[in-house]
Amino acid sequence: MMKRQNAIAAPLRDFVPEHFRLAINDGVAVITLDRPDRKNPLTFESYAELRDTFRAMRFDEDVTAIVVTGSGGNFSSGGDVFEIIEPLTKMEAAELHAFTTMTGDLVKEMRACPQPVIAAVEGICAGAGAIMAMVSDMRIAASGAKVAFLFNRVGLAGCDMGACAILPRIIGQGRASELLYTGRFMSAEEGERWGFFNRVTEAGGALDAAMEMAAALNAGPTYANSVTKRMLQMEWAMGVDEAIDAEAIAQALCMKTGDFRRAFEAFAAKRKPVFEGN
Amino acid sequence: MMKRQNAIAAPLRDFVPEHFRLAINDGVAVITLDRPDRKNPLTFESYAELRDTFRAMRFDEDVTAIVVTGSGGNFSSGGDVFEIIEPLTKMEAAELHAFTTMTGDLVKEMRACPQPVIAAVEGICAGAGAIMAMVSDMRIAASGAKVAFLFNRVGLAGCDMGACAILPRIIGQGRASELLYTGRFMSAEEGERWGFFNRVTEAGGALDAAMEMAAALNAGPTYANSVTKRMLQMEWAMGVDEAIDAEAIAQALCMKTGDFRRAFEAFAAKRKPVFEGN
Amino acid sequence: MMKRQNAIAAPLRDFVPEHFRLAINDGVAVITLDRPDRKNPLTFESYAELRDTFRAMRFDEDVTAIVVTGSGGNFSSGGDVFEIIEPLTKMEAAELHAFTTMTGDLVKEMRACPQPVIAAVEGICAGAGAIMAMVSDMRIAASGAKVAFLFNRVGLAGCDMGACAILPRIIGQGRASELLYTGRFMSAEEGERWGFFNRVTEAGGALDAAMEMAAALNAGPTYANSVTKRMLQMEWAMGVDEAIDAEAIAQALCMKTGDFRRAFEAFAAKRKPVFEGN
Repeated sequence: MMKRQNAIAAPLRDFVPEHFRLAINDGVAVITLDRPDRKNPLTFESYAELRDTFRAMRFDEDVTAIVVTGSGGNFSSGGDVFEIIEPLTKMEAAELHAFTTMTGDLVKEMRACPQPVIAAVEGICAGAGAIMAMVSDMRIAASGAKVAFLFNRVGLAGCDMGACAILPRIIGQGRASELLYTGRFMSAEEGERWGFFNRVTEAGGALDAAMEMAAALNAGPTYANSVTKRMLQMEWAMGVDEAIDAEAIAQALCMKTGDFRRAFEAFAAKRKPVFEGN
Repeated sequence: MMKRQNAIAAPLRDFVPEHFRLAINDGVAVITLDRPDRKNPLTFESYAELRDTFRAMRFDEDVTAIVVTGSGGNFSSGGDVFEIIEPLTKMEAAELHAFTTMTGDLVKEMRACPQPVIAAVEGICAGAGAIMAMVSDMRIAASGAKVAFLFNRVGLAGCDMGACAILPRIIGQGRASELLYTGRFMSAEEGERWGFFNRVTEAGGALDAAMEMAAALNAGPTYANSVTKRMLQMEWAMGVDEAIDAEAIAQALCMKTGDFRRAFEAFAAKRKPVFEGN
Repeated sequence: MMKRQNAIAAPLRDFVPEHFRLAINDGVAVITLDRPDRKNPLTFESYAELRDTFRAMRFDEDVTAIVVTGSGGNFSSGGDVFEIIEPLTKMEAAELHAFTTMTGDLVKEMRACPQPVIAAVEGICAGAGAIMAMVSDMRIAASGAKVAFLFNRVGLAGCDMGACAILPRIIGQGRASELLYTGRFMSAEEGERWGFFNRVTEAGGALDAAMEMAAALNAGPTYANSVTKRMLQMEWAMGVDEAIDAEAIAQALCMKTGDFRRAFEAFAAKRKPVFEGN
C-alpha cells in the first residue's frame, strides 16, 4: 500500500517531544500540555513543536484520532507572560509577523491533519489555549472549566489564530463578538448551551470522556472520518451548490473503500462491521 | 401573465409519482415517503423521481409551499441497504459519481425551487432522510423523532449531499462535527435546543403543525417568500457588503409587486391584507 | 499623531441631529431613536442622517463605543407606514433601488465604523429596527422586548438590509428562516436562548446594561477592539486558511501598539493596565 510520504518525523511512535507529552496507544495520540505549576502555558518552543507534531500527524498512518489536554487540572493558560508577551513587546514588525504566522500555522496544521482532534478541557483554558480548544473538531469540558479568548485583556485584538472566523461558526456571531471584545470567561455550562462544548462531564472526567470518544471514532471508518474532516474545512466558504458537487466526488471515493464494503457485508450477515481504515 | 416555462411536467396537479405520494391542495404540495413497512427508505428510482418532481416545482404556479413527510410514524430510514448500498458496493467510480451527483441534485432542486419546504418529522429520520430534513427550509419534529447522519456507520464520510456545508450553519460547527463523525442520533428535544427543529409537537402532531405553517406561508406574499428563499441560498458565501447590495436589488423588485401595494392599502384601510403572490 | 481624515462632520461632539438624539460622553456615543408617540419609526430623513452619522463616526477619535436605543420603552417600529411605505408604493424601480441602497448603506456604515455598536432593546423592535439591532455587534434586551423581521407582513421579502446573510450567522439558518419567512416576533428570552441577545435585563434595564458594557469596552484597548470589528467583518466569507493569514498580519500590527506594551508593563508591576487606544 502507498504510504503517506514524510521527510520529517512520522511515525511519531518513538518521538519524545521536549515541550509537551505525547503518548500513542491504540491509534489515539494524546498530547498533554504539561507544565502544571504554570497552568500549562505555551512558549515559542512549544508552539513550534506542536506545529511540527501536528504536521507530522499527516504522515502517521498509525494515528487515527488525537486528544489534546493539559495536566494538573488545567488545559492551558495560553501564551506565557514572561516567556512570550514580554519578548513580543520588544520585537520589530517582521519578527512579530513571523510569530503570528507560527501560531497561525499551528491552527492550520490542526485542521489539515487527517485525524479528528478532541479537546479535553479542565480548569483554565485561556488565550492560545482557548484557540487550541476552538480549532479542535470536538470539545469536552469538565464542570468548572472556563474558557477565555482574553486577547483584549492584554491589549490585543480578538483576531488571533483564526478566532474571528472560527468562533462565530461554533457559537454564533453575537456570542462570539462578546467573548472576543470583552475577553470574559465562558463557563463549561454556557459553552455546552452555546455549542462550544459537545458535553460537560464531572470535574476530572474530561479526558476519560475524550478517550472514549476517540476510541469510538477509531472503531469507525477512519479514512472516511478523515474525509469528513477535510470536507468540513474545504466547504467553509463555498457556495451550497459547489459544496454539493465537492461532496459528490468525495463520497464517491469513499464508496470505493473497503470499509464501505465491509459495512455492507457485516449488515447482510447481521454482525457488527469491523473497519480497517481504508 | 408570463407563465413559468416548463418542458416537463408542471403543473403537477395530475402527476402521480410511482415512488412516493404527492397531494396538492390549497397551494400546498405534500410529498409523503410511503413504504412504511421499511420505514420509507429511498431507492435509486425514488431519488430520481424526487429530484424531477422538485425540479418541476419550479414551474408550477399553483404550488407555493411544500411539505415533506413520511408515512407510518417514520420520516425515512435513508438509502435502502439492499436496494442502494449493496449495488453501490459493486459499482465503478464513474457510476458511483453519477449516483452521488443524482442525490446531490435532489438537494440542489429542493433549494432551487421557489417554494419554502417544511419537513414534518416523526420517528426515524436517518441518512438521506436526515439530509432531506436538513435541506428543507424549516423543520418540525414530533416528540420521539430522532435524526442521524449515519453515513459513517456504513463506512462512509459525513460529507453526503451537502451535509458538511449545511449542517454547521444550522446547529453550529461543533455540534455538526459530532453528528457527522459519530453518526449518533439527535433527539427531537436536542434538535430544538440546537436550532435544527423549529418546533417539537406531541407524537403524531408534526404533519398538522407543518400544514398549519404552510397555510400561514401561503396566506403571505408567496412571490416575496420565494425571493427570501433565493436570497438565503444566494448569500450563503457572499461577503456582507455584497449581500447587502444583492438584497437592495431584490427588495426593490419586491417593492414593485402588487402584494406590497395590497399590504399598504389594507393597512391604511385597517383590514387584513389579502396577498395574491405577485 | 495622524488624525483620521474627514471632510464632513467629525468630531460629532457638537453635532445636533434633526431626526434622533445623539449624546457623547466618556467616549460613548448614544444614539436614541426618539419619536416615542410612534414607537420611534424610521423615515427617509432619519435613515439618511443615521447613515451619515455612522459614516462620520469613522473619523471621530473621541468616540470609541456606540450604543443604539429608543425612547419611551420601545426600540423602533421600523419604517413608518405613511412616511415610508406609502411613498414607496408609488415609486419607480430606480427610485426604489436608491431607497434600498440607502438603507443598505446604513448597515454598511454601522459595520464599517471602528466602534463596537451595542443595541439596547426595550419593547418593540421591528422591521428596520430589528435590522439595526441585528447589525450591531452586541445586543441587550430588556424583558418584554420583542423582535420581528416583519417584512413579509407588508408584502416584502425577508432579504432586507442584509438579513438573509447576517441573521443566519447569529441564530442559525433554521431559526433565521422561520423569522424571515413568517415575520413572527421573537421574544427576549428566545433571543437570548438563540444567541441573538447577549443578555436579558429586567424591563427598563437594557440601556444601563449597554452603557456598562460600553464603559467596559472603553476601559479596554479601543484601537485593538476596532481591529476585532474589522476582522469579524473581513473574514465573513473567507476560507479558514486565508482568515488565519489575515489575522496573523492584523495581530502583528496590534502587537506594535502602546496598549500591548502597557498591558505587559502593568502585569509585570502587578497593577491594572490603563489603555490609551493606540
